[in-house]
Amino acid sequence: MILRLDRVQTELPPPSDPDPVGAAAVQELFGGRFGEMSTFMNYTMQSFNFRNKAAARPFYDLIANIAAEEYGHIELVSATINTMLTGATPKSDKPQFKKNALADLAGMPNPQQAIAGGLGCLVQDSNGKPWHGDNVFSSGDLIEDLTHNFFLETGARNNKLKVYEMVDHPAARALTGYLLVRGGVHQVAYARAVELITGADLSKMFPAPRIPTDKIPESKKHMKTGEHLKLYRFSPDDYREIAAVFTGEHPETGEPLEVVDEAPEGFEPNDLPSQPAVFAPDYAPEEIAEIADRLRKDAGL
Amino acid sequence: MILRLDRVQTELPPPSDPDPVGAAAVQELFGGRFGEMSTFMNYTMQSFNFRNKAAARPFYDLIANIAAEEYGHIELVSATINTMLTGATPKSDKPQFKKNALADLAGMPNPQQAIAGGLGCLVQDSNGKPWHGDNVFSSGDLIEDLTHNFFLETGARNNKLKVYEMVDHPAARALTGYLLVRGGVHQVAYARAVELITGADLSKMFPAPRIPTDKIPESKKHMKTGEHLKLYRFSPDDYREIAAVFTGEHPETGEPLEVVDEAPEGFEPNDLPSQPAVFAPDYAPEEIAEIADRLRKDAGL
Amino acid sequence: MILRLDRVQTELPPPSDPDPVGAAAVQELFGGRFGEMSTFMNYTMQSFNFRNKAAARPFYDLIANIAAEEYGHIELVSATINTMLTGATPKSDKPQFKKNALADLAGMPNPQQAIAGGLGCLVQDSNGKPWHGDNVFSSGDLIEDLTHNFFLETGARNNKLKVYEMVDHPAARALTGYLLVRGGVHQVAYARAVELITGADLSKMFPAPRIPTDKIPESKKHMKTGEHLKLYRFSPDDYREIAAVFTGEHPETGEPLEVVDEAPEGFEPNDLPSQPAVFAPDYAPEEIAEIADRLRKDAGL
Amino acid sequence: MILRLDRVQTELPPPSDPDPVGAAAVQELFGGRFGEMSTFMNYTMQSFNFRNKAAARPFYDLIANIAAEEYGHIELVSATINTMLTGATPKSDKPQFKKNALADLAGMPNPQQAIAGGLGCLVQDSNGKPWHGDNVFSSGDLIEDLTHNFFLETGARNNKLKVYEMVDHPAARALTGYLLVRGGVHQVAYARAVELITGADLSKMFPAPRIPTDKIPESKKHMKTGEHLKLYRFSPDDYREIAAVFTGEHPETGEPLEVVDEAPEGFEPNDLPSQPAVFAPDYAPEEIAEIADRLRKDAGL
Amino acid sequence: MILRLDRVQTELPPPSDPDPVGAAAVQELFGGRFGEMSTFMNYTMQSFNFRNKAAARPFYDLIANIAAEEYGHIELVSATINTMLTGATPKSDKPQFKKNALADLAGMPNPQQAIAGGLGCLVQDSNGKPWHGDNVFSSGDLIEDLTHNFFLETGARNNKLKVYEMVDHPAARALTGYLLVRGGVHQVAYARAVELITGADLSKMFPAPRIPTDKIPESKKHMKTGEHLKLYRFSPDDYREIAAVFTGEHPETGEPLEVVDEAPEGFEPNDLPSQPAVFAPDYAPEEIAEIADRLRKDAGL
Amino acid sequence: MILRLDRVQTELPPPSDPDPVGAAAVQELFGGRFGEMSTFMNYTMQSFNFRNKAAARPFYDLIANIAAEEYGHIELVSATINTMLTGATPKSDKPQFKKNALADLAGMPNPQQAIAGGLGCLVQDSNGKPWHGDNVFSSGDLIEDLTHNFFLETGARNNKLKVYEMVDHPAARALTGYLLVRGGVHQVAYARAVELITGADLSKMFPAPRIPTDKIPESKKHMKTGEHLKLYRFSPDDYREIAAVFTGEHPETGEPLEVVDEAPEGFEPNDLPSQPAVFAPDYAPEEIAEIADRLRKDAGL
Repeated sequence: MILRLDRVQTELPPPSDPDPVGAAAVQELFGGRFGEMSTFMNYTMQSFNFRNKAAARPFYDLIANIAAEEYGHIELVSATINTMLTGATPKSDKPQFKKNALADLAGMPNPQQAIAGGLGCLVQDSNGKPWHGDNVFSSGDLIEDLTHNFFLETGARNNKLKVYEMVDHPAARALTGYLLVRGGVHQVAYARAVELITGADLSKMFPAPRIPTDKIPESKKHMKTGEHLKLYRFSPDDYREIAAVFTGEHPETGEPLEVVDEAPEGFEPNDLPSQPAVFAPDYAPEEIAEIADRLRKDAGL
Repeated sequence: MILRLDRVQTELPPPSDPDPVGAAAVQELFGGRFGEMSTFMNYTMQSFNFRNKAAARPFYDLIANIAAEEYGHIELVSATINTMLTGATPKSDKPQFKKNALADLAGMPNPQQAIAGGLGCLVQDSNGKPWHGDNVFSSGDLIEDLTHNFFLETGARNNKLKVYEMVDHPAARALTGYLLVRGGVHQVAYARAVELITGADLSKMFPAPRIPTDKIPESKKHMKTGEHLKLYRFSPDDYREIAAVFTGEHPETGEPLEVVDEAPEGFEPNDLPSQPAVFAPDYAPEEIAEIADRLRKDAGL
Repeated sequence: MILRLDRVQTELPPPSDPDPVGAAAVQELFGGRFGEMSTFMNYTMQSFNFRNKAAARPFYDLIANIAAEEYGHIELVSATINTMLTGATPKSDKPQFKKNALADLAGMPNPQQAIAGGLGCLVQDSNGKPWHGDNVFSSGDLIEDLTHNFFLETGARNNKLKVYEMVDHPAARALTGYLLVRGGVHQVAYARAVELITGADLSKMFPAPRIPTDKIPESKKHMKTGEHLKLYRFSPDDYREIAAVFTGEHPETGEPLEVVDEAPEGFEPNDLPSQPAVFAPDYAPEEIAEIADRLRKDAGL
Repeated sequence: MILRLDRVQTELPPPSDPDPVGAAAVQELFGGRFGEMSTFMNYTMQSFNFRNKAAARPFYDLIANIAAEEYGHIELVSATINTMLTGATPKSDKPQFKKNALADLAGMPNPQQAIAGGLGCLVQDSNGKPWHGDNVFSSGDLIEDLTHNFFLETGARNNKLKVYEMVDHPAARALTGYLLVRGGVHQVAYARAVELITGADLSKMFPAPRIPTDKIPESKKHMKTGEHLKLYRFSPDDYREIAAVFTGEHPETGEPLEVVDEAPEGFEPNDLPSQPAVFAPDYAPEEIAEIADRLRKDAGL
Repeated sequence: MILRLDRVQTELPPPSDPDPVGAAAVQELFGGRFGEMSTFMNYTMQSFNFRNKAAARPFYDLIANIAAEEYGHIELVSATINTMLTGATPKSDKPQFKKNALADLAGMPNPQQAIAGGLGCLVQDSNGKPWHGDNVFSSGDLIEDLTHNFFLETGARNNKLKVYEMVDHPAARALTGYLLVRGGVHQVAYARAVELITGADLSKMFPAPRIPTDKIPESKKHMKTGEHLKLYRFSPDDYREIAAVFTGEHPETGEPLEVVDEAPEGFEPNDLPSQPAVFAPDYAPEEIAEIADRLRKDAGL
Repeated sequence: MILRLDRVQTELPPPSDPDPVGAAAVQELFGGRFGEMSTFMNYTMQSFNFRNKAAARPFYDLIANIAAEEYGHIELVSATINTMLTGATPKSDKPQFKKNALADLAGMPNPQQAIAGGLGCLVQDSNGKPWHGDNVFSSGDLIEDLTHNFFLETGARNNKLKVYEMVDHPAARALTGYLLVRGGVHQVAYARAVELITGADLSKMFPAPRIPTDKIPESKKHMKTGEHLKLYRFSPDDYREIAAVFTGEHPETGEPLEVVDEAPEGFEPNDLPSQPAVFAPDYAPEEIAEIADRLRKDAGL
């Protein structure tokens, strides 16, 4: 089970110039083979399918707990894409339906962001192909799942780096800067787990790809507060045995790894404005607002 | 963001006779078009893509909060499938690899549960096709999303009823009995939301399909404790405005609907035993256990 | 069985400036989840799979008859896409193969319209993904199928509105203007059917999305002749019991709904010119014409 | 545009012993790469995308007219599958929902026929994979499209022959016997068309596969009435120029080919009984019947 | 089994101006339904699945041997795409990671060439959809497989011609000019095979599409050296019976067909330079080079 | 380019009792995510996309050379599946078409092996899903590709072990016994490559999964001749620098690894008999044989 918090794990800038071309590329970080849907669902399924947890709880706790953090990552990528698309049609609470209201979006790489969505995030990659369940590897074999996860994080880091190089919208840069640091922590965690079981020193493979994270200003900012060293425990009471695995030094910096015994506080998400030309949240958002107001009052809220 | 709890929302029986044929059918409730991956990801994406939350918060809170409960449903279906597959090869902590260890599974409807997984749940439907992202409808148009969600829950109820009729393993029956009640609550919630905005009286469409839920013994058990009336708030502090929408009477029973201002307590999940013939969690699980023990000690746990 | 008529249901303008970018977007109305392939095949399959027609014939007739009209809609979308692509290479009956003849099409969103097709319509959506059979919902449960169909038409209306806003080619506007009106009739028909069985007043949900159809000039033109009120019977002798369901008033305008006891007359389709650079219908169309002439003469035509 | 007739092109036997295993295999003839969805949609799209019809009308008419007949083939395959599944649960108009009502269907090759459908036909192949739009070849190049069509009919004949050998349910045998004859006519028609344009004598390739059709008793019955020689015109007034192409002798028998200037009369389809355990058409079909009766009376029918 | 040679079958020009738009279109020749993956894998699978080779060896040898040549074609298309993408980011052996290094690639039709690949070829078509195994037709029926292969080569020729017209990069032109000639040989070979078994004179269908190959300068160059007439034997010792099928005259030119009893010599492939901004082959390629040098020395190479 | 040899890399037993259930499971080793299509195409594409080979030739040679061996693996899996299906219908050179000839195959897990194929191998996995191109990882980043390849071989070993446990047909056992040994060599080779670049000691992760290969009798047989230690050079003249990487000791046995400077001799493949009931290679294979004989004579063979 989960409890949900209306918070996001890092701060994203408010909407600025819309960037539908970039927003289509950022979809790779959502629904690509190495996107956050893949990290989230791989670790989630591995934790669901874990057998004999009692006997291997430190590893179960590690996978289950990282899975919980990854939920926050699909949330962040989604928020970024929504931010980047905001303003592609007029922001307003009044009707904006008219000829050519979406003309500028006709040639954008992913027209379904506007046609199927309301200028929002789709469960697709940067080529507009849907994420699918065979992207999940959950073999039941602990060492193999951990090896996969290390590889998955490496591929994910590669894709984040490239999207960083490709898309310069402030929201995309804030996203990639942050995810590179947090994904890096997971990459380290899985390498540590493999090492502790097998003795293979995967820490020598860092950084992978071989660009040091601190060369990226948007990431360095988070490294200054130690975000690259901390594994947060995303649970009120459970998954305490992550501390048995997430030990030792960071392979890039040599600093000591650290378990933080609670979730980060997070940030209040931006409430993105209406885009009535695509009926988000309605043809005439102000009318929905009136209904909501009335209901709130009726309920004494 | 989420916090994760190592609890499940209902109690499932421990493994009994394995049922790989049934386990393949139950996959429909996981990865089918109307499976729990679909309900979970539809509401999750709709909440991520919600624009102008401030103005329509009761509806945002409703969708976001139900999405949180649905996470627990993919967890339950997964636990059920794992339970049903347990024992299809010997349960043991010693190596069981040998010729014909999996011979009985060769003709089972979904051989990938054993080959790709460790006798576990896949992100697939009952025909072995992967769930995919175009199963998600997140148009940004609030009324349309809510209409979809009512329809989705109706299709989901249909599929749960049929799996109930098809699969008689105790874990499957416990699952479908529970999900029918909780999915019913969501069906009511979305119908209420549509009604409050448009005035259309969807409550007259209940039950849909038209079999009353209380004719199902495994569901009736949960109705006795009022589970069909309660919308739990799956958050420490957020989503309080669900109370503005989840009001009135249950369309099947006439009883008053009720918001419960916290998550249910849940149950400790069964720790399913090793299946070493499929390397879950290892060729020789006892060796993994020794390593884990040592790590725990080293960490002072 | 069907009889086919070499007529189209509405008049489309002849080719003007080619618009490959728009033609790629219009594919959503053909092969998208809510495109005309989906409406056509959903109702067709539901009618094929209908059990005990005798006992529920008004509803069978409704679904089967609307399915017949939808065939004309896939025809119209296809004609529109072909029209929009005409002229992207020279129109001629002589060979036009040469270097760079298709250079302008290299960056168009759907290159397969030119490579796999002859500047024609593909069975794909606006992201170039093929339509697939799991877009069809045919549960056998009458109320559920009807509920689905109402939802499907709502999603289809959403997509038509957005394509209207996105694509300004005269053929696309003629298409969307017409389909919005006729799809609206189907939306009403299914809402009526649900209402007559369950009592739920879905008419209160109109218009959905909430923009009135008569605000769209290209649609208003068809409303003036009452096209928004009429359900045509697309059969020489069958499906007469649609009259038992398609009754009452139009939920947007209050005017009485009307069954027309025959198919509309339709219009002669435009015969679109050759595009020999893509071998449509040949490298040297004039040579095909000569052969055809000879065959016609031999056959005494 | 089409007109639809509530008739089927050949007589199918009424339901007898249910055969879910066979019904899953027959799906290949519906949604396989060479199934009737493919023949129907290939010719339909080729006719929609045909450029410069005036200059090549005999060929346009041929493709468009065969497309119309193919609609009747998807109808027949669907009717066959429904027939074969009838009786897999009790036929009744009263509720039949109960534990284990579908237990016998749990291990059947395509559980979605019962879970997603109401013991009906899906838009899938014999492996449960959905038919998809990239099965359509519509290049715009007339000779190439015709060559494809000849090949497609050859593959379709192969698959029908194998399903004939594999499935012995009376409905399946009636289906394959009939389709082999009518598909054979289309195979001849496309071979003729290629020959008339290019001079290549494809008639020498018959039969393909090389088993003579008259060795199949269920087909021979239709050959006795000349069904293997006739190309029906499925239109009140159009497609008359098929007579310019469908000429000469049948390549297997040497008999003269014949254009029939109207559609065949067809047969009244069987009205298949309710299967209430899968809610087809309802949990309690008799209640739907009552509503329908009332509506009919209200409408004066 | 195969032996691999580090040679390519034709000479491609070195990288010049990068052309990501063209490179996305050329993907159709790699992973499209009629791309080289399809020709390669169709003939490969048909040769693997061939039954009773002894009795039909000339045909087995033909298919198996052409399959071997097709491997060289996927290699050439891949090399072309890599060539066309070279220079889209700076060529260097030093790190080039920086903001906006990939900005020019954000709007390119296939962003995954840069994100998932290292400016390389993907196993996808021109719409970014992955090639899939159901593109393979391997029925086991020899005549049918050969008929398919003739059709497949016809479709492949169509697509090559269109890509020739669409993409003017020198590498693409060299590729299409060459493949048109060699694919033409295979088209002739399969037509011959069908003719020899059935007597149907498919040679009358050439050229298909009906543009003579010698009208294409880049192809004519290869025809001057007789490349359109020769079937090379791609094996040290096997597949000698191709000589029993590849006989007679070329249907376009009337010149005698010729079996060459060895593979062509081929050309040394271009070694394409590093693109460090996409980490190909590394973030800092010079460091990899140093390691490689050391290893070579250690091994005495 | 390649040269093809009509040889297979290991000896498979001749057909014995047919095993369609097992043959469907073995498809996982062909077209599953970790099947031989994946290993073959991953390494092939990585070698095609390799940039700056000169500077990193030992690694290029390694990947390119292993890719060449993998071709022999798809060939072996295919031969195995064909062997296992032989005899499912009568072996004969005379027509065997008749009612119920395929009745025993109706319920087999992959009916398309008989319907789409001629009792042959499909490009599908054990659930009947087609292999697709997004199974290929070719990032251009050398270390990442090598890491992936190590992981891929680990997953492949897992699947081979499970199929070994699941399917007891002699051909399947011969196949898995052999592939486990040769795949193991590739797993070692990629681990070595990673180690040589990064210093990470992946050899400590062997065996993975953790069952020693020599516990499998069918594998041990090949280990006795040292097949687990040898990397063959599959090229007349190229890929010589594999010797710079494939060095050191085998991580399981400690024996020295060895480069063999030529391809293995291989074995003459079994020529599998006709299955005329599925038209493989014909309805009446003896007639094909006569034609082939005549052609051979005409060609002086």
